Amino acid sequence: MSVKEDVIGRSRVEDTDELKEFYSRLENLNAGALWTVANDIEPWEPQPTSVPVLWRYADLRPQVIDSASMVTGDDAGRRVVMLVNPGRKELSAAVGLLYTGLQIMNPGESMTAHRHAASALRFVIEGEGAWTVVNGDRLKVGPNDFAITPRGAWHEHGNDSDRSQVIWQDGLDIPLVNTLDANSFQVHPDQYQTPGKVQNSSLLEYGAGILKPAGADWNRRYSPLLAYPWERTYEALLNQAKVSAGSPYDGIIMEYVNPLTGGSVMPTMGAHMQLLRAGEATRAHRHTGSVVYHVAKGHGHSVINGQRLDWHEHDIFCVPSWAWHEHANDSASNDACLFSFNDFPVMHSLDLYTEAAMEDNDGHQLLS
Amino acid sequence: MSVKEDVIGRSRVEDTDELKEFYSRLENLNAGALWTVANDIEPWEPQPTSVPVLWRYADLRPQVIDSASMVTGDDAGRRVVMLVNPGRKELSAAVGLLYTGLQIMNPGESMTAHRHAASALRFVIEGEGAWTVVNGDRLKVGPNDFAITPRGAWHEHGNDSDRSQVIWQDGLDIPLVNTLDANSFQVHPDQYQTPGKVQNSSLLEYGAGILKPAGADWNRRYSPLLAYPWERTYEALLNQAKVSAGSPYDGIIMEYVNPLTGGSVMPTMGAHMQLLRAGEATRAHRHTGSVVYHVAKGHGHSVINGQRLDWHEHDIFCVPSWAWHEHANDSASNDACLFSFNDFPVMHSLDLYTEAAMEDNDGHQLLS
Amino acid sequence: MSVKEDVIGRSRVEDTDELKEFYSRLENLNAGALWTVANDIEPWEPQPTSVPVLWRYADLRPQVIDSASMVTGDDAGRRVVMLVNPGRKELSAAVGLLYTGLQIMNPGESMTAHRHAASALRFVIEGEGAWTVVNGDRLKVGPNDFAITPRGAWHEHGNDSDRSQVIWQDGLDIPLVNTLDANSFQVHPDQYQTPGKVQNSSLLEYGAGILKPAGADWNRRYSPLLAYPWERTYEALLNQAKVSAGSPYDGIIMEYVNPLTGGSVMPTMGAHMQLLRAGEATRAHRHTGSVVYHVAKGHGHSVINGQRLDWHEHDIFCVPSWAWHEHANDSASNDACLFSFNDFPVMHSLDLYTEAAMEDNDGHQLLS
Amino acid sequence: MSVKEDVIGRSRVEDTDELKEFYSRLENLNAGALWTVANDIEPWEPQPTSVPVLWRYADLRPQVIDSASMVTGDDAGRRVVMLVNPGRKELSAAVGLLYTGLQIMNPGESMTAHRHAASALRFVIEGEGAWTVVNGDRLKVGPNDFAITPRGAWHEHGNDSDRSQVIWQDGLDIPLVNTLDANSFQVHPDQYQTPGKVQNSSLLEYGAGILKPAGADWNRRYSPLLAYPWERTYEALLNQAKVSAGSPYDGIIMEYVNPLTGGSVMPTMGAHMQLLRAGEATRAHRHTGSVVYHVAKGHGHSVINGQRLDWHEHDIFCVPSWAWHEHANDSASNDACLFSFNDFPVMHSLDLYTEAAMEDNDGHQLLS
Repeated sequence: MSVKEDVIGRSRVEDTDELKEFYSRLENLNAGALWTVANDIEPWEPQPTSVPVLWRYADLRPQVIDSASMVTGDDAGRRVVMLVNPGRKELSAAVGLLYTGLQIMNPGESMTAHRHAASALRFVIEGEGAWTVVNGDRLKVGPNDFAITPRGAWHEHGNDSDRSQVIWQDGLDIPLVNTLDANSFQVHPDQYQTPGKVQNSSLLEYGAGILKPAGADWNRRYSPLLAYPWERTYEALLNQAKVSAGSPYDGIIMEYVNPLTGGSVMPTMGAHMQLLRAGEATRAHRHTGSVVYHVAKGHGHSVINGQRLDWHEHDIFCVPSWAWHEHANDSASNDACLFSFNDFPVMHSLDLYTEAAMEDNDGHQLLS
Repeated sequence: MSVKEDVIGRSRVEDTDELKEFYSRLENLNAGALWTVANDIEPWEPQPTSVPVLWRYADLRPQVIDSASMVTGDDAGRRVVMLVNPGRKELSAAVGLLYTGLQIMNPGESMTAHRHAASALRFVIEGEGAWTVVNGDRLKVGPNDFAITPRGAWHEHGNDSDRSQVIWQDGLDIPLVNTLDANSFQVHPDQYQTPGKVQNSSLLEYGAGILKPAGADWNRRYSPLLAYPWERTYEALLNQAKVSAGSPYDGIIMEYVNPLTGGSVMPTMGAHMQLLRAGEATRAHRHTGSVVYHVAKGHGHSVINGQRLDWHEHDIFCVPSWAWHEHANDSASNDACLFSFNDFPVMHSLDLYTEAAMEDNDGHQLLS
Repeated sequence: MSVKEDVIGRSRVEDTDELKEFYSRLENLNAGALWTVANDIEPWEPQPTSVPVLWRYADLRPQVIDSASMVTGDDAGRRVVMLVNPGRKELSAAVGLLYTGLQIMNPGESMTAHRHAASALRFVIEGEGAWTVVNGDRLKVGPNDFAITPRGAWHEHGNDSDRSQVIWQDGLDIPLVNTLDANSFQVHPDQYQTPGKVQNSSLLEYGAGILKPAGADWNRRYSPLLAYPWERTYEALLNQAKVSAGSPYDGIIMEYVNPLTGGSVMPTMGAHMQLLRAGEATRAHRHTGSVVYHVAKGHGHSVINGQRLDWHEHDIFCVPSWAWHEHANDSASNDACLFSFNDFPVMHSLDLYTEAAMEDNDGHQLLS
Repeated sequence: MSVKEDVIGRSRVEDTDELKEFYSRLENLNAGALWTVANDIEPWEPQPTSVPVLWRYADLRPQVIDSASMVTGDDAGRRVVMLVNPGRKELSAAVGLLYTGLQIMNPGESMTAHRHAASALRFVIEGEGAWTVVNGDRLKVGPNDFAITPRGAWHEHGNDSDRSQVIWQDGLDIPLVNTLDANSFQVHPDQYQTPGKVQNSSLLEYGAGILKPAGADWNRRYSPLLAYPWERTYEALLNQAKVSAGSPYDGIIMEYVNPLTGGSVMPTMGAHMQLLRAGEATRAHRHTGSVVYHVAKGHGHSVINGQRLDWHEHDIFCVPSWAWHEHANDSASNDACLFSFNDFPVMHSLDLYTEAAMEDNDGHQLLS
């Protein structure tokens, strides 16, 4: 039974014996009385069950390394330590309807190919041998490179280094797609794809960004560019900083885009890289939509709903929907970079995106 | 622990003492091992917890009538018997992430105005006095009329008859918007809106459909047309039947559209009216996306995942995502009409729509 | 040699013997000096060669009737008296890059089928037997009905009355498509199309406007609806007048639209019907884009660039691009209706649409 | 009087005295008989009056250099030798409705600011001091750089070198915009703009192509990126050549795009750079739409409607609409690059684009 609220337009029905009998009759008919739940299901503002969490790489890395010797890739499918929000355990979500995890591959190892209705992305943390074959395009990716595995694309991963392990972060919309009753999974009939001859062909074909193959006829809903190198990304941020003051809430922030449309890389997940200049501390805002952050460079802290989280390179943290958040680079001399992915494309497609800036206290939260 | 599957690419890790200790370490770090849940969260095909349900109007109507005397509109907020899928109780959903309910208003009664991030629609069942004010436009609606209350629109309802009660069906995306952590609610500062002078102004302005006000400049994501009369709808179906064989799965079926774009009426929910010709029995198909049906006219039956549901006027039933379904008009002389609403716009926006036709047994399911 | 202008940034080069010799050298190389034409080809504002023209039906009708006995349809291709702007003779244009003409068909007559890259539209003036087959859809059209023949569509016309002639107005973008070097023409291999069984099938299929066939998959750039009946059009204007004050420049004005997109009926030409209330006199404005008007109902006058044109039923007049224009209904008791077609879709697609309102003299032009 | 054609559906009316009198009557009413011009204005296929032309830089450069001392920039507005197609003299067009010219600026010279409804682009030929200020953004451009001046943008140019002249090629849609009666022109109220502090800011802000400023809100119809450096362009071609066989008609060909949409740089003109590999000879095709080519690198020849044109660096040539054309790189060891601009965006927006491949003779034209 939902809490009563004494406001006109809200439910304030008291339980009576007669009503209890009525509710029981309804239940037998697969029905119920709206007023018993109305105040709960029509909240004054979003009520995420997700909470802010900081996952320290210093804590997680030893576990990930351990996992590499505890299970084989073949037995595990993929060897991943997933990050689970205390409020979203039943969905295996890191925040909102987003999943994330740390995947490790040993030297010379490769995983078999599969595909699913869920979409995936990767952000590489360490190791030089990482590769992934997506729809036949073999991508080589290194630290801080960003790559995508769109819905329905065959994919398989591996590590062709002969000495170093690879660790990367996976991001997926599995909780979203499951909640929408739309997920599916297939293993590749041949276990492995036959990649094209040229590596990183999508980068060669679509990576210019400011020119496209004439007549390029792309009718899919995701980016034809599958990998976004760190060097290009960081250079873009530095260039942007020369001409723009940036966002008061995010500093210099750029979105990875589909170069053929300027839209988000995939229809369910977007991704950003942002740069906080030395000493920069942003103002607080909040918005619908959930975000997973990865510290790509530097150290600093974020305040999320009044809670301070201090972060260092490769730490991961999350901002639930509608949570106040602000970021600070704690270095006086070096910039800091935050990679992040989100479900903003969902919010925008469904017309559910809303944002608000903190007005009081110069735009900064009070620590709780 | 998820079920193991002995297929390459699926998880088949056995629990060991060492692993149990490892899992416990991970849990302490808000983490987990993907392979313990992978086969569950990456299912071979959609696994809705919703089940097919038929809600008989003969059963529900007496309850709805009872409610009209048991609680006041003021106390209840709105007086609604909601229909709850046994598999979705925690979300108050009728199927998937769709909510539906039967609302009753007594003669002369009116509800106070509010708005929410969730979107709503109405399908009128009985009574002549129904009105609703949406964003200042006062709509008069009668049996089998369809009306929308888009996200963020102020709305209030009432019944200006002096003798008959009004019952209509509400459809909302509340479970979806709550799951996306994006719902919000406001009561109107003046309790009631001041409606414009002309009733059904959106119908007068945008109802022609084949002409629009020159230079109409509409930048919202939902239809400017707020009410769709039954007479126009039924005539459209009869006209369509003269030129089209219709869909093998749905007979003659038309979608209510935004006349300025041809798109769905709202970005999260679409609505159809379909006509099954006398004696028509359609073939089975399935698709991602959930549907709530209301029998607007006639009687017949549907088979959903092998289960036969016999329906009569004003019965409501649901088809979960990916469930096989086919419909039959059991009258040899009269047509039957099914109103339905769905989350197909979400499936399309997020590129998650997939469908499949039943090939065997002439396209008909075997009853289970 | 263009006129010199003594404004910084404009050309004011004087001819000299040396320059004359230079110009002659350039001409031999298929070249020229920009400054000799710059002030002409970069005018301060649009410089149409089209002039306002009123074509009185009382003058034209006798000629059209004459033509019906002077040439056969077979010999003429189509029997049309075209309206030619004195400033656009070389292009056979009525105004700007728009062509128009009056076509007559004798009882029982039919024309052979052809198609062209140019797009066409029809507005019926008199006669009850008019039909046209467009892409296999046989349309029956009567007075004040509007119909389209999109680019590339096979079409043929006729008159199945056994006693009355048919006269309709043709509108085409022939001058535009020729100027763009993109026109082409084919005669139908079988001389005549085999029409579908159901007449006006596009109206039955798409005419509802506020509902569409579910899953309608239309990938062409023009409206699937080929005919727009006068009754629906006039009713839409009367409804609009109940809720809208209309445009200060055009009264109650609606655009015929593609019901699947809300866009113009064809990518090169749009069409409107407007209603001037009894006694209504609009204010003057001007815009890029050319318009051909047809008086569908009533009588009144328009002032175009200071020139008053008095019009009666079935008169045709034109407004050149960037010409000031305002309209008045000269009846104190009856409404007047103006059908018009234009090249606004071209202006909008190419981002060349601009408009300005007359501010002085209460928005009315002084007669010149 | 148009030529008669003895084909059913074409006009074949013979002049008679009666008809001559009729035509004269029509002329007095600003009218005419369609059948007297029908076969002309409805041609079997496009009938451009433009002809293929090769403008040799060896011929033009001396004239351009001469012009620099013969007229001042102030007197000329801009000092430009324009290239005029023998068939389009009245429109000052190089081909179809496209204008082009060679502009020269002396060391230290600058032109005053203006704007127009016509759109412009530049392709730099020689000189290191070229700059242009477009909407306040100061661009520095060097040889083979491409830059745009969209419709309505204030712009001014200059040369800040202290010793070398600058020559660049201008491309404009002036003939198109004039033909559409939509051109206009303003001189800047302050004669010169005040440029922003950072040079090439659009390149810094939007040049990454594969990332965009987060939340970039661009509601104009042209690219926010105003300059496209040659180095990036050439690298893109070389990368493309690694993964693609290219077009059979154009070799490796890429379109300069609006990085926020993937669309053409402006709504009326598109631009390409293409690379012909050593020894490559393409097959012939034709399409609606006109093209101006500039030889950016290398030497070779093109065959246009059977006419061979041999080209060297900085030569300019044109291909009229619907003309057969094929290109060959005559070097066995070096690649050749052709810059080109066109009116394809117009053809696509108006649904007038059509193309055809030559089937006979292995796809190669016979020389005429």
